[in-house]
Amino acid sequence: MKIIVDAFGGDNAPLEILKGCAEAVEELNIDIMLTGPRAEIERVAKEHEISLNRMEIADAPEIITMEDSAGDIMKTKKDSSMAVGLQKLAAGEGDAFISAGNSGALVVGTTMIVKRIKGVRRVAFAPVMPKDKDFFMLIDSGANVDCKPEMLQQFGIMGSIYMNKVMGVANPRVGLANVGTEDHKGGELQHEAFALLKQAPVNFIGNIEARDIPADAADVIVADGFTGNCILKLYEGVAMVLMSKLKGIFTKSVKNKLAAAMVLSDVKELKKTMDYNEYGGAPIMGASKPVFKAHGSAKAKTFKNALRLTKAYVEGNVVDEISASIRAINIAAKEQGRESTAE
Amino acid sequence: MKIIVDAFGGDNAPLEILKGCAEAVEELNIDIMLTGPRAEIERVAKEHEISLNRMEIADAPEIITMEDSAGDIMKTKKDSSMAVGLQKLAAGEGDAFISAGNSGALVVGTTMIVKRIKGVRRVAFAPVMPKDKDFFMLIDSGANVDCKPEMLQQFGIMGSIYMNKVMGVANPRVGLANVGTEDHKGGELQHEAFALLKQAPVNFIGNIEARDIPADAADVIVADGFTGNCILKLYEGVAMVLMSKLKGIFTKSVKNKLAAAMVLSDVKELKKTMDYNEYGGAPIMGASKPVFKAHGSAKAKTFKNALRLTKAYVEGNVVDEISASIRAINIAAKEQGRESTAE
Repeated sequence: MKIIVDAFGGDNAPLEILKGCAEAVEELNIDIMLTGPRAEIERVAKEHEISLNRMEIADAPEIITMEDSAGDIMKTKKDSSMAVGLQKLAAGEGDAFISAGNSGALVVGTTMIVKRIKGVRRVAFAPVMPKDKDFFMLIDSGANVDCKPEMLQQFGIMGSIYMNKVMGVANPRVGLANVGTEDHKGGELQHEAFALLKQAPVNFIGNIEARDIPADAADVIVADGFTGNCILKLYEGVAMVLMSKLKGIFTKSVKNKLAAAMVLSDVKELKKTMDYNEYGGAPIMGASKPVFKAHGSAKAKTFKNALRLTKAYVEGNVVDEISASIRAINIAAKEQGRESTAE
Repeated sequence: MKIIVDAFGGDNAPLEILKGCAEAVEELNIDIMLTGPRAEIERVAKEHEISLNRMEIADAPEIITMEDSAGDIMKTKKDSSMAVGLQKLAAGEGDAFISAGNSGALVVGTTMIVKRIKGVRRVAFAPVMPKDKDFFMLIDSGANVDCKPEMLQQFGIMGSIYMNKVMGVANPRVGLANVGTEDHKGGELQHEAFALLKQAPVNFIGNIEARDIPADAADVIVADGFTGNCILKLYEGVAMVLMSKLKGIFTKSVKNKLAAAMVLSDVKELKKTMDYNEYGGAPIMGASKPVFKAHGSAKAKTFKNALRLTKAYVEGNVVDEISASIRAINIAAKEQGRESTAE
């Protein structure tokens, strides 16, 4: 298996990306194609004595900066490490593409270059996030601010397949983010999505209140991209403020510092379990080939974990499974005279 | 000033409500009209030796149960403590109404019985919630699942007035909940609301990402009721899971229990600052007279605080201020040939 890696995406590129790749080549038995400025990749690898064994380089001289608009990158920076990686994937030169770069650009670029699975209305940005015991997928988390009910049905199907095939969750519970648990809750979008999810080949458990998401309400939370993005970011925001307040407590006095030292490893563990970075990132669901977003601040170990998930994304035949499932519901919808979920 | 109190609303009614009222009569120098089954109120007061000094009782024999639908309560339970309280307020027999009962019923009942301020499109449920340093208002938090841009503009105006007059925030910063901070972010609703909020007589600071809400992004967060409800409930959900995980750490071993004992008071304080119960509740904004929702689990002290805020809601002339401000923007809109914000 060959995974194409954006060597210049993310806050810690290229050093941590290269380190993560070098570890992954050994541990995961994969080949890698790095995209980015060739000379710079070779210089950093040499300087830090990182082996480029089983890694080839696809030269991509342009660099994406913070000033570039996500929507324009794929038009104006066709020779960037991200655009080249997506082109190589589309051309069949690798089995998957992974980047820790700009999420918005990756969603736009995936749609433009790799294209969607036939019948899929929109790709979705779908991070796997921490909950009380383990994790859940939040789909969509911001790729689509305006959604149709059929898109939410597809999100449920795609998320269910991913959580089963890649994350190993048996019969994933799919829930619809809503303002209450009763069936009739929400607006028109939720009412129609609820009906469609009930007909979908997933374990749909109904509406989920935001309050219950961090507990263990469902394995897949379906939402329009606006709601999902608010959930994603508030999750992070509340946890950050609480952890910072906790830090304030633990550094307030000598006595408190002593107490902190006694529970330090446990609190670090807590911080880790609330950090969605640790789960390695977010697949772009609905793309015709596996595209994976690693967390922007990923260091070597996290990036290696993301490569592990990307490998599982390929091996789980997730794209084929989604394709077959979407085709089946589209045929069923047509037979019943309803609008197909395809555009 | 006379405040009408739903003596039978909330998890701890009537006992904690009566206790809170008795304390408030002394501390806040107010008169109270209690609504609920007269005999039961008198029995509980006697049994617990609670003085009913400066309190009159408006008999309301019906009890609202968990099985009653919020939408139907005002039709089917016209003699419930909540409905009678709202009727007494509408009839001018008191200056404000406060209840710790069903939020949905209170919103519906307020609209039906107390009515909206002229020109206000919808009442909003607007809790004051904790953030890193102090607090902010989240308006709307669920009264209106589907919103028009003009409603969001009115929410910003109403929230700004309340935070200034009741919570004492000078020149409150009003922000629009959105998926990014740039002006063009969000869907059609956000684009139009953004333009209207810029024209409103408030200190509008633009779009706010959910990540920044718990920090100190703004004093008033404007959102449609669906988004606001997700924010409200996720806020609570994430904090609950984190505090429960922290509790797990502190009870894990003898060593950890010792550490916990050393920081116990500080952690309790932290828990308190994250509890929106402590801020005492949520005004129903846009009602033609002050209506206030106290937290359902309010005990005497919290209920007394809610009474203090209700008193400030009356004394701040919030209803008149809102009325004048909404009238002014509606006149301005008409002069410019735009749609009035009134229905």
